[in-house]
Amino acid sequence: MISTAERDAMRRAIRLAALGRGSTSPNPVVGCVVLTPDGEIAGEGHHAYAGGPHAEVAALARAGERARGGTAVVTLEPCAHTGRTGPCTSALLAAGIARVVYGVADPNPVAAGGADALRAAGVEVEFLPDPEAERVNAAWLTYARARRPHVTWKFAATLDGRSAAADGTSQWITSPAAREDVHRLRAESDAIVAGVGTVLADDPLLTARPSGRAARRAPLRVVLDSDARTPLTARVLDAQAPTLVAVAEDAEPGPLECRAAVVRLPRAAGRGIDPGALLEELYRREVVGVFLEGGPTLAGSFLAGGYVDRVVAYLAPTLLGSGRAALGDAGVATLAEAHRLRIEDVTPVGPDLRVIAVPAAKEEE
Amino acid sequence: MISTAERDAMRRAIRLAALGRGSTSPNPVVGCVVLTPDGEIAGEGHHAYAGGPHAEVAALARAGERARGGTAVVTLEPCAHTGRTGPCTSALLAAGIARVVYGVADPNPVAAGGADALRAAGVEVEFLPDPEAERVNAAWLTYARARRPHVTWKFAATLDGRSAAADGTSQWITSPAAREDVHRLRAESDAIVAGVGTVLADDPLLTARPSGRAARRAPLRVVLDSDARTPLTARVLDAQAPTLVAVAEDAEPGPLECRAAVVRLPRAAGRGIDPGALLEELYRREVVGVFLEGGPTLAGSFLAGGYVDRVVAYLAPTLLGSGRAALGDAGVATLAEAHRLRIEDVTPVGPDLRVIAVPAAKEEE
Ligand SMILES: NC(=O)c1ccc[n+]([C@@H]2O[C@H](COP(=O)([O-])OP(=O)(O)OC[C@H]3O[C@@H](n4cnc5c(N)ncnc54)[C@H](OP(=O)(O)O)[C@@H]3O)[C@@H](O)[C@H]2O)c1
Ligand SMILES: NC(=O)c1ccc[n+]([C@@H]2O[C@H](COP(=O)([O-])OP(=O)(O)OC[C@H]3O[C@@H](n4cnc5c(N)ncnc54)[C@H](OP(=O)(O)O)[C@@H]3O)[C@@H](O)[C@H]2O)c1
Repeated sequence: MISTAERDAMRRAIRLAALGRGSTSPNPVVGCVVLTPDGEIAGEGHHAYAGGPHAEVAALARAGERARGGTAVVTLEPCAHTGRTGPCTSALLAAGIARVVYGVADPNPVAAGGADALRAAGVEVEFLPDPEAERVNAAWLTYARARRPHVTWKFAATLDGRSAAADGTSQWITSPAAREDVHRLRAESDAIVAGVGTVLADDPLLTARPSGRAARRAPLRVVLDSDARTPLTARVLDAQAPTLVAVAEDAEPGPLECRAAVVRLPRAAGRGIDPGALLEELYRREVVGVFLEGGPTLAGSFLAGGYVDRVVAYLAPTLLGSGRAALGDAGVATLAEAHRLRIEDVTPVGPDLRVIAVPAAKEEE
Repeated sequence: MISTAERDAMRRAIRLAALGRGSTSPNPVVGCVVLTPDGEIAGEGHHAYAGGPHAEVAALARAGERARGGTAVVTLEPCAHTGRTGPCTSALLAAGIARVVYGVADPNPVAAGGADALRAAGVEVEFLPDPEAERVNAAWLTYARARRPHVTWKFAATLDGRSAAADGTSQWITSPAAREDVHRLRAESDAIVAGVGTVLADDPLLTARPSGRAARRAPLRVVLDSDARTPLTARVLDAQAPTLVAVAEDAEPGPLECRAAVVRLPRAAGRGIDPGALLEELYRREVVGVFLEGGPTLAGSFLAGGYVDRVVAYLAPTLLGSGRAALGDAGVATLAEAHRLRIEDVTPVGPDLRVIAVPAAKEEE
């Protein structure tokens, strides 16, 4: 039986977990609320950065003696292994916690087993599966379960799906509010990925510049560039953030290697670098969340490969009727093969509309 | 000073007005709530069909003696002229109404002057400009002010703006719920317009078949078909509803004239029939609301001509990456020339998203 106080504590813990977004990788975001035996909030905490205290430890520290005999409500199953910090199970036992409620089972084969360890030590443990607790940790859960980064594809387009006018003009289709929102999402990710087409066309910085918030840590910039065509003067190679250029195994990066980290990866069957190989490489580099920024060609090949876990579309209330489409060939020949999504959220952002959708198939997994 | 009871009555009157949608043309939709001198509802009414009692008369009939000394709250300025029914001003005076509050001034040069006539007769008259009262009557207000039908362009597309896959498959991009919603909107219009391209490709019926609601009156079906290519076997020519085929002045409609009303109109500068000439013709036929259903070519030419007053987009949470675009050439060469809209409403319809937008320029008129 889950009490109302525990349900409320879970909602609060999820909000706390979200505060860690963008700074906990390769760890999950976790929030924890400790309740007294009477169901009052004794302390709260979240995991703020990798290497820092886990959510349970932070919440217990704030609760102090009030935690004794109480309940810890935590978004993710407490870990039982000793990583950079000690196991949370020990901290919970030491604090005299009598009951633990968690919202998502730990999929990590190394860390899992926290629930069993607690039960073995006489703690009452309750699993309260929570879709919101899943969602707040979607990136890390994909990383842990599929052993590859979670990929968010962002695009900006008109209501009729164009990302540039007939003459190529495209700045700016969406509003300053939408662009600001993009910076927020970039800052929540670990890597920002673009194709060399976008680098050549727009010379973007690909940095996260959210306003009103100190950038905690610069996401890795990644350019997919089979033949090392990235100009040495490209802004993406500046000193603001680290950059990785993925070239084909037979490419000649030359002086590019002095300006950026260069990794050699296999070519895809079609054009460019194999997206699966790139994601493997980024997984090795402990990149949890990838923000795929462009353009239509790259997005098409990630979609075709089944590597897009979330789509964030900024739709401007504008009609063009001609010009470049927001999405290029994505391996779909007939309607039955369309990439089907489920809309998760629709929010106005300035005059534009932000639509967040996830693959319908992923849902049913 | 407007009382709270009067403001509430206006909201209610607007909802009543909406009940008349689709059956009052060429009249406006109008709702009326009559309040007693104490601000209690004495009677309500709406204009239900052309030739039927006006909203004020219907509400007064229900209020009876309780109307004496009371207030009539009405979405549109009461008419002062004798049309198919007597003027509403006389009815209000005869019922002993002491005060009238209205939400939109009558733009009709023949009917206008109701407020002045009432004032002259000693009634207190208050104009309470109300954007919702404008919106509920948007079609008729365009008809009265611009002296042409109001045009709603509907399209169904994927999130990336495609209305068919690469192989041409397009049935069905959107859900049954979205298609049902389209039938509701068709039923609220006076004419459903398509290009011969859609007739040749899909052989649509172009009838309004809303479920759970008796079709009050079949909207006119209109095909734009410069060279009279509509096949005699086309379903749009069946007996379910009247059909008008607009051909070029130099066309040879032949036996088509036995199957449908045929009108000869000037060719456009580009391809097809001049959309302005078509709208003039439909205005003459007392068509207030046009539902423009397709396809991308026709929509482009209406947009280019500045004839689209409302866009209703059904976006399926699907990505294609290839296939036909939802909108064809709309006279836009560069981003600065884009057709800018303002989003008026976003509503989930089944798994899809319905986005209603109006030209940003129209707003500022
Ligand atoms: N609206 C938006 O949200 C948005 C976002 C970003 C960009 N854009 C626009 O997109 C335009 C650029 O379009 P684009 O399609 O040429 O850019 P892109 O997708 O960024 O780059 C495509 C290039 O990336 C390389 N590539 C490497 N691996 C690839 C893979 N697995 N799949 C696909 N490509 C791979 C290929 O070149 P190699 O074969 O040489 O490797 C390919 O030509 C710009 O005009 C930009 O403004 C729009
Ligand atoms: N997704 C949707 O919501 C939706 C809705 C409707 C249709 N569609 C699809 O659209 C496809 C048909 O596309 P389409 O573009 O060929 O169809 P269309 O726009 O319905 O028809 C275009 C044709 O209409 C004639 N026309 C007459 N006056 C015109 C004018 N002022 N402007 C433009 N055209 C005029 C022209 O032929 P003449 O020169 O011979 O007169 C022109 O070729 C179908 O496959 C259908 O499935 C999709």
